[in-house]
Amino acid sequence: MNTSELITIKEVFLESDPNRGNMVILKQEGEKDRFFMMFVGDAEFAAIAKENGLVEPKRPLTHDLYLSILAKLQVDFLRIEIYEMRQETYYASVYFRVDGTEQSVDSRPSDAVALALNRKIPILVNQSLFRRRLSKEEITEYEGLLKSVKF
Amino acid sequence: MNTSELITIKEVFLESDPNRGNMVILKQEGEKDRFFMMFVGDAEFAAIAKENGLVEPKRPLTHDLYLSILAKLQVDFLRIEIYEMRQETYYASVYFRVDGTEQSVDSRPSDAVALALNRKIPILVNQSLFRRRLSKEEITEYEGLLKSVKF
Repeated sequence: MNTSELITIKEVFLESDPNRGNMVILKQEGEKDRFFMMFVGDAEFAAIAKENGLVEPKRPLTHDLYLSILAKLQVDFLRIEIYEMRQETYYASVYFRVDGTEQSVDSRPSDAVALALNRKIPILVNQSLFRRRLSKEEITEYEGLLKSVKF
Repeated sequence: MNTSELITIKEVFLESDPNRGNMVILKQEGEKDRFFMMFVGDAEFAAIAKENGLVEPKRPLTHDLYLSILAKLQVDFLRIEIYEMRQETYYASVYFRVDGTEQSVDSRPSDAVALALNRKIPILVNQSLFRRRLSKEEITEYEGLLKSVKF
């Protein structure tokens, strides 16, 4: 992976909408118009919300269980990378160091983001996965297009 | 914990009911009338169903992510214990060995069961948490009781 394509995330937002579901929005610092957005399940949403200080679950979540085990082992978490989309699915890797060797494992982006927030390690997203917030004119145009399409 | 009170589980059943939710039922081998039952969330249900060979998720679940990291570290998982209920909530511990020392961490029982099935380690449940399947006569009596109670 060419790291020059990767953008460091500074802001993680959560949005829940009864029609669209749970959304996680990642932004570069100070960036208003471009963002990375993904839909996540309830458990993954809760894990990220907990790391963001929005909820305080009474019992350890799945992440908390494993992070409490990993706290007793020799492992340094380095960073996560959300690097591509295939078949409507985003892919991520978690990078860590064991015995001086950097390793990585495959992850869903939602799990990787929760882990990164917990361990306070960088969240990197391939810039090709960023989307631009639509302007009012574009939304109007898009809605007009939708009306003209038969489903 | 007095291990004489603990029962080793040999069978893990899953049941999903639109009214009652996702249930995980744990049984001693050959035992028909007594069982341990807990309600779990969708993500925890999926993790256990995957370990039971009932579903094959396309992407790693939260458990899979962390188990793939733990596979690169020196840790031996020993057993899990579901040991008590407080305020309508079951409590469990995961036992493991690091550098020759046995350690344990707090866990929700659903996470502990998924981990145990994956690592093929014993699942132990305090016998006081077992319940007995109601007989037809008891169900009839219970339903009669319900009718006589005003809600």
